Order: sequence, then C-alpha cells, then structure tokens
Amino acid sequence: MTSVKHMKWWGWGVEGVSFHHEDKPNLAPFVLKAVDLDLHQPPKPPLAFDDLSIPDSRADEDLLSQLSEVVGAEHTHTDPMERIIHTYGKSLRDLVRLRNGDIPRIPDVVVYPLDEDEVQAIVNRVVAADAVLIPFGGGSNISGSLEPRPAESRVVVSVDLGRLNRLIEIDEESGLARIQAGTLGPDIEEQLGSRGWTLGHFPDSFTHSTLGGWVATRSSGMQSDKYGDIADIVKGLRVAMPGETLVIRPLPSTSTGPSVREMILGSEGRLGVITEVTVQVHRIPEQRLVLGYFFPNWEAGLKAMHEISVSDATPSITRVSDARETAFSFATRKKSKGLSSLVSKGLMKVLERKGWDLEQVCLSFIGFEGGKSHVSRQKSLVKEIVTRNGGIVVGKGPGQLYDQKKFDTPYIRDFLLDRGAMADVSETAAPWSKLQQVYDNAVTAANKAYDKIGVKGWVMCHLSHSYHSGACLYFTFAFRHEGIDPLADYDVVKSAIQQAFVDNGGTLSHHHAVGTEHAAWLEQDISAPGVHLIKGVLNAIDPGQNLNPGKILPPSAEPAPAPRHEPAEGLSAH
Amino acid sequence: MTSVKHMKWWGWGVEGVSFHHEDKPNLAPFVLKAVDLDLHQPPKPPLAFDDLSIPDSRADEDLLSQLSEVVGAEHTHTDPMERIIHTYGKSLRDLVRLRNGDIPRIPDVVVYPLDEDEVQAIVNRVVAADAVLIPFGGGSNISGSLEPRPAESRVVVSVDLGRLNRLIEIDEESGLARIQAGTLGPDIEEQLGSRGWTLGHFPDSFTHSTLGGWVATRSSGMQSDKYGDIADIVKGLRVAMPGETLVIRPLPSTSTGPSVREMILGSEGRLGVITEVTVQVHRIPEQRLVLGYFFPNWEAGLKAMHEISVSDATPSITRVSDARETAFSFATRKKSKGLSSLVSKGLMKVLERKGWDLEQVCLSFIGFEGGKSHVSRQKSLVKEIVTRNGGIVVGKGPGQLYDQKKFDTPYIRDFLLDRGAMADVSETAAPWSKLQQVYDNAVTAANKAYDKIGVKGWVMCHLSHSYHSGACLYFTFAFRHEGIDPLADYDVVKSAIQQAFVDNGGTLSHHHAVGTEHAAWLEQDISAPGVHLIKGVLNAIDPGQNLNPGKILPPSAEPAPAPRHEPAEGLSAH
Repeated sequence: MTSVKHMKWWGWGVEGVSFHHEDKPNLAPFVLKAVDLDLHQPPKPPLAFDDLSIPDSRADEDLLSQLSEVVGAEHTHTDPMERIIHTYGKSLRDLVRLRNGDIPRIPDVVVYPLDEDEVQAIVNRVVAADAVLIPFGGGSNISGSLEPRPAESRVVVSVDLGRLNRLIEIDEESGLARIQAGTLGPDIEEQLGSRGWTLGHFPDSFTHSTLGGWVATRSSGMQSDKYGDIADIVKGLRVAMPGETLVIRPLPSTSTGPSVREMILGSEGRLGVITEVTVQVHRIPEQRLVLGYFFPNWEAGLKAMHEISVSDATPSITRVSDARETAFSFATRKKSKGLSSLVSKGLMKVLERKGWDLEQVCLSFIGFEGGKSHVSRQKSLVKEIVTRNGGIVVGKGPGQLYDQKKFDTPYIRDFLLDRGAMADVSETAAPWSKLQQVYDNAVTAANKAYDKIGVKGWVMCHLSHSYHSGACLYFTFAFRHEGIDPLADYDVVKSAIQQAFVDNGGTLSHHHAVGTEHAAWLEQDISAPGVHLIKGVLNAIDPGQNLNPGKILPPSAEPAPAPRHEPAEGLSAH
Repeated sequence: MTSVKHMKWWGWGVEGVSFHHEDKPNLAPFVLKAVDLDLHQPPKPPLAFDDLSIPDSRADEDLLSQLSEVVGAEHTHTDPMERIIHTYGKSLRDLVRLRNGDIPRIPDVVVYPLDEDEVQAIVNRVVAADAVLIPFGGGSNISGSLEPRPAESRVVVSVDLGRLNRLIEIDEESGLARIQAGTLGPDIEEQLGSRGWTLGHFPDSFTHSTLGGWVATRSSGMQSDKYGDIADIVKGLRVAMPGETLVIRPLPSTSTGPSVREMILGSEGRLGVITEVTVQVHRIPEQRLVLGYFFPNWEAGLKAMHEISVSDATPSITRVSDARETAFSFATRKKSKGLSSLVSKGLMKVLERKGWDLEQVCLSFIGFEGGKSHVSRQKSLVKEIVTRNGGIVVGKGPGQLYDQKKFDTPYIRDFLLDRGAMADVSETAAPWSKLQQVYDNAVTAANKAYDKIGVKGWVMCHLSHSYHSGACLYFTFAFRHEGIDPLADYDVVKSAIQQAFVDNGGTLSHHHAVGTEHAAWLEQDISAPGVHLIKGVLNAIDPGQNLNPGKILPPSAEPAPAPRHEPAEGLSAH
C-alpha cells in the first residue's frame, strides 16, 4: 500500500477535524440574519462511501501491467476509494457532486511514482497507449483542473505525486532550493526551516497543496507582497513531457525568447508532469509581525492599501476586509478570546465618539518581515499612511489570531453544506483605478443573481496581494439552498460575479487558475489570439490530448482529436 | 518624406557625434598596452555610401500599391538609403558587414505606419502576399534580430514604428501608462516626466531604442534592481497579428494559464508587430542618488553586491567593475575632471597604506531612489555592507559622471573599428553561487580564443542587475585586427565566451535577446523540449514564416516552409 495521506474523500481537510459553532456564540444569529439559515437545526447525516455508485475501472491489463512495471504493483491502485479520492478537487461544485453521487467519469487507475524517472516512464507509456494522464498533487484545486472529461472514452490514469516529497538540496549561496513537486506546504517549510530557510509561500490551501500544484495553477500566497507570486518564486523547472524531460535551469533572469518557464506556470498538467522545482528561498527573518488595523470604511481601507503599495514601505502582507467580512470575522470570534478584545465595548465607544459608523468598520492586517530596525521603520511608515486615511492601529492580538486561523477557512464550507447552505469564493485582480468599480459591480451582480434564483444571499470581500499597479479582490459568497438543482443556482451566482470581474477590468482569476470553472471567460480576458497562442503551446506538446485534456481552453476552442487507434469492436460506427 | 530620425547608417548614434581620445590623455597608452593598438595612427577614411553595391528592390507593384494604400505613398520607401538603414541592427557583426559592403539581402521596401490600424492592415497584406515582415524600432539591436535571411526569396518589408511615438494616456491612480511601441527612450521619459512620472527603464541603448524593441528583446535597464526588467514593467500589450490584434489588458497579476504576455516578451517580431504597451510607471522620486565605491578586489565587490541583494536594503542600481574595467574607466577620464579626483595621488596613497593592491581596485556604483529618509537609510545599510567587505565610499562625483556618460559607450566601437580594432559585448546571468565560476571561465575562454587567433586581446567585466538569487555579468572584449576575415576571428572569441556562459550555469543572454547571434545556444540553455515549445508558439501564429523568420530558433529547428504560392516563372525547378 502507498502511504500518502489525503484529505477526506468527501470534503476539506483532515479526518476528524471540522468546523463547529458551539464556542462562537455570535455566529448562529449572524448566519440566521445573513442567509436565513438556522445553525441549530440538525445537520444532514454525513455521506456514506458505500452509497456511491462507482463506475468500474476501464484500465486494461496491458496498461496496468506496464504501469506496475514502472511503479510496482503496490503503488498501482484500482480500488474505488483511491479512484474517488483522485476524481475531483475541492471546489464547491466538486463537493456537491460527490454528495449527490454525481461521478460520471472517475480515474481508472491511480499510480504513485517514486521519482522523475518513474514519472517520465509513466508519461511515455500513457501517451503510447493513447490513454489520459491527470497529475495530482494535494487535490486542493477549486477550479475543476483535476477531473476527467465526463465523456472521456480513453483510460484515465491519475498520477499522484505524493511520494515526490523531498527537499533535494539548497544552494545556500544563491538562496535556491531544489524541491520535488509533490511536496506539501508544511513539509516544504519544515525541511527548509530546519536549515534556517523559508519559501514564504502561504496560500490558504497551504496545509493540503503541493509545490507542483502551485506552479501548475499560478498560486499566490498571503505574503506575496514580499516574496512574490509563485511565478516570481520559481526559478528552475523539470517537467516530464512525452518522450523527454524539459529542463529549465535556475536563473535569476534571462532573455531566451518567449518564456518557456512562464508556459509551464499555469499549465495545469497539460504540458506534462512537473517533477521538480527550483525555488527562491529566504533566510528566516529576524522578526515577523502581523498587526491589525481598523478603517472607518472600505474606501479608506482601499486608499490606504494603495498608498502603501506606492510608498517606500515594503510590507509582506496588505489585507483589508470590507464591512461585511469584518462583521463575519467578529461573529466567528470565540468567547472572551482574540478578536473579542477588539470589539470590546470600550474601543467601540471610542470609535463612535470619533464619529465612526460601526456598521462600516473594516478590519485590516498588515505584515512586516526583516531585521528589527527594518520592521520598526516599516511599521511607522505604514502607521503614518493608515492614520492619514483615518484608520487606527489595533495591535498584535488580531494579527496573531489571523496568523493562526488563516488555513481553517475552507472547513466552513463543509459545515455549511451539511446544513443546506452553499458557500464559495471568486477572486480577481485589477488596476487600482478599477478596484472600486470591480467591487461595486461584483457585489451588485451577486445580489441580482440572488434575486433571480430567489434566495437571501451574502457576499463579502477582502483586498489582498498588493502590487504597484493594482491588487487582488477576494469575494466569498453564500446562500441557503432549498431547490432541486443547487449547482444550477450556484452557477447563476458564480457566473454573475465572474462576468462582473471581466466586464470591469479585472481578470478571471488572480491565483486560482482557469481549470474548467473559468474557461468560459478566457477569451474575454486574453482575447481570441491569446487563446489561439495557448492552444498552439498545448498542441505542440500534446497533439493527441492525452495530458489532462479539457482544462484551460473552453471546449469550443478545442475539438476532440481524431482517435489515433482503431476504435474497439462494438464502439465502431455502423 | 517621413520625418523619423535614425542613427548613422554605418554606426552608432547621431551624425556628427563621435568618440574621441584627445581630451583623455591616459587612453592611448592604455589601449597600446592592452591590445597593441596605436591610437595616434591615422584612422581609416569613413565609409562612402556610394561605394556600397545595393541590391535592387524586389517589391512588386501590386504589393507596393497595397502598402501605399495603407500608409500613403509618402511613407512607402524603396530608395537605397532607407533600405540600408533598415537592413541591420548595430552589432559589431552588423557594422563590420556594412563596412565590407556585405549586404546580400536588404529590405525591399520600408513603410512607416501611423497607428495600430495601419500596422494591422500591413500585417494582413504582407501575410496575404506571402511576403516577409520585419518590425523596426530604434535599430539598436545587437543580436541579429533585424536582418532578412540571406537567402530570403520573398519580398521583405521593413515596418518602421517611428511614427507611433506617443504617450496615449496615464492611469494616474494605478501608475499605468499606455505608450505607443515606437516611442524612443528619451521621448518616453520626456512625455512622462512633464507630468511627474518616470518609467525607470534605462538600458545602455536608451537614447536610440524603443519601448516595442525593449519588449521584443526582453530588455533590462540599469535601475532594474528597483523598477524591474522590462518583463516586470510591462502590464498590458497590443500586438497586430495576422488577421487580428492580440489584446492583453493591463493587470497587476493573473492566473490565466500559460502566460501569453510572456510569449510576446522576447518574441522579436515573430508573433506580429507590437503596437502599444501599457507599462508600470512611478512618481519621480524625491531623491535620486548614485554613489561610487571602491573595493580592494573583485571577490570583495561580488560578495558585497550579493549581501546587499539579500539584505533589507533596496537600492536601484548595484554595479561593480572588475579590476580591468576599473582601469579602463580610469583611462577614459578627462584631464582634471570627474574620475581624476578619484585616482588622485592622495586617495591612492591612503589605499596603499591600507594594504590595497592598486592593480586590483574595483569601482562600484550603487543607486538610491525614494523619499529622503528612505535614501538616507538605504545609504547607511549599504555602507555597512560595503565596509564589512573591505570597501570604501568614494562619494557622489563618480556616480554623477557615470550617470552622465552611461549612454556614450557604444560610440567607442566605431572609434575602434576606424582604427582596426574589434570591440563587442556579451552578457549573461547566473545564480550567485556560479558567478565567480562563470567569470573565471569566460575570461579564460576569451584569452584562449585570443591565443588561437593569434592576437593580443582584452576582456573586462562588470556585475549589474542584482536579484535575490543571482546577477548579470556583462563582458566587454576587444582585439586589434589585421587578418583577412575579421568576423571569423570575432566568432572564435564571441563563441568561446558564450559557450563558457552556458557550460557554467549562465544563460545565453540576460537582456540582449537570442536573435541569430545566440540561437546556437538556445537548446543548451532551455533544453530540446523548450525549443520545441517556442517553435509551437511561433507556428501557431505564423505557419508560413512571414514574420521575421530566422530569429530565436536555430536554423536546424526550423526548416523553411513549403511555398504557399507557385514559384514565379524562371524560379521553378526543371
């Protein structure tokens, strides 16, 4: 048996860990008011694996024996649990489909290679057999990048990179670490940290996502203001492509034509399997600090983040929640802990006396890293800007709390699904001049969508990942569901928000990839010739569409290729 | 007539401006010692345009009238001077070939479109006519990116972007400026500067290169430590491709699959004509300062630059010359001005007393930009690192001089060519751990090459463009030439240096592009699958090789396409 740990097959995170509200007395009334959902109603009973109707594996003996030859029979799996685990990522759509037993096409076989040679051999054999290969890292994807096409007639092989989980070496002089692509976030930081280094890449999915997955989807972590997006962090790459391994050597910068490194970033397994990444790492800073701030309203918060981004200050995190997300944060606070001190009557009275509308308060977090004198100077530069925009420093408490809680958010989705509510996220990036407009129109679009499907819905947002020219806006939306087709209703809301992004100068996603979920907006984002260029890249490596087909490009841009082999008997046309 | 100014048809820069040595008393003895060249010998008489044997234009009436229809007859040129100006860039190879009358294939027609619509119409008509299109910006390219293939049988159309020279608009809130691709460096800074902004991109070619050219070749400017390479600066793009314009909207960051923006960067005209670029611009900083420093030797200088790059300091320029380049700088100083104060006997005596070997002294420049308190803090952070590595602060004088002289260097090449010496540059980037090795081996390779061709040669180097994980090394090499085939000898030296780069972990070029000059090393740099990917990108847009064919890919990777049209009578095979 392969000893690679996975998340719950039916939801986010580790078995036995889940979100609960009993210790958060303000949450139930908040949720009741926001989306008409009574948290005190008993949740639906959890899903039973045995209730799923699981399609038989279509893997033939020949391919299975070829794969076993490469990775060993003990790492070649066709049992239902392995195949279900590797069917979807963890998007809301994925969770809902699993709960509904909607699994029309699941992988036929799951293999766990040990190293690059094995990965390369698998790629070659899968392509030679005209089967389909889908690379699998932590399985945390929420853009539909992992699922087989429903009508896929060829054998589907899921290649789990979980055994490629080592830090290979650190070039300490250059701050460059060679790390295997299947390594999970915590394993990366642990292996680097024991030698005094950090990668500094902390996406929300950190605990359950891998380096290869981050590269394949253009991930961004919460300290990206300092460390960069994964696209900035990745210096070298090794990718098993049909026939041969692509080798991009680690270089600080280069002038070698259209960037091949940047073709692999965001390629979602369509150009091969990323086996190894050389990343820029940093010495663990002397000091690391996250402070909380309050702003009297969203406009003031946005303006302060903008001023910070073009100032001489270089914080590691810039983040501000709108009033609704701030209210939600307050509602999830535990009794007499953490944030409760913030919303103490004393502080609120002070703010009221200053003339603040307490309904409009926006909570912000700003992070600082570096030497002590650097952090101290950054803090004072930021404080000046915050104060100039009417904000106040709240202090370390909420920052620490944010730091501790930041990876727990996805657990809430399962908690809400159990209770009949759908919650999901959509994020974008846009120039500073368009952020307010993107925000206003996305909120309006969501609310119109709620009206259309006749539900009471909620939408909240934060700004994070600031750049000189713009920032990311990250929306969370939720509604209680009673209808017969929850995903049809979900699509109305999700599509409305996505369309508002693209119509108002935002991109289809800042760091969640295209997958199948956002493919419909690709042409509106990068224009028809842009789609054509991506198609050219994919086609150069994978003319037979054997490598994770159906992702990135909208189906209209990618007709299925003619079959290379004669169709099997009984499948031929009469 | 089209009123677009060009450089001298036979050399670098403006007519009437040239390098001279009369006011630099130390240069002649220095050059005599370095490469056995006597600057007091009379130079060769300048080349006469009438001595060139210029091939007839092959443009047929049909295509000419189609092009005139688009841009007007007054902007459609077939006269010899226009065609010669648009034949080559300004590499040493280009200058030598022009001086030798080696012009086997020159453009048949030069057109000057006014705007994107005209560019798009030209692209469509040239491709429809199965002619060849070569975009032309400032003509400063030194990697062979501009020349027609010698055996090109189709009509060659040079599209000069010189009339697309306007700043269209500034999004002041986002710091994003829309600028036409043909705008020259000084025109960009003037138009931005009058409104309080700067692009901060200052390559050595600045005065004679364009924004579109920078994008097409992945340029980097001397303040890249602060402002980034052009790849970081470019946020949005418009490119006239066959049939349709590619539109990449300005975004701070995005997750839309393989990056199309990064496919256009470095595309050297092979994917179409860049018409407009949206760039990140910055408010002109309160203070801008370049300071000079001395290090006792190259190793100490390298180490200090490395420590600065991973410190909390964020200078705009980090640059250190090796001992030979430092000696050359000293030799070009004017009587009792600028650098002379540096090498005053007083200072040198002090250094000798400190135990410095004056032959090993390395001159460094470090730039600071921002608010006054920021600059002051940066300066002291840097001073601490410099001092720790045995260096000393020399002060503002040399920094100002460097700032004033930085764009004049290319003039020296013509001066030397007139006197029988070949001088050229080769640059690379590598991780910090490999810089010393790249340096040592490139110098050794150059000297071995000089031995092989039997000349006394010179090679010097500086480090510039620092990154967290590495830096650029920029080599200048020169030798006196007496043989019959100067370019064959040049190739021995240039190839030896390039091979040393790639063999020791460096890239084929940090910011000079691939062109034809570096194509032979592409596969060694990015591996065979990398070349295959680039080929896929080019082929997706330009299957007929109508767009600047022969650039980036080595000839072996790109067989000529089958002609689309019947060959004309007399050319058909019998």
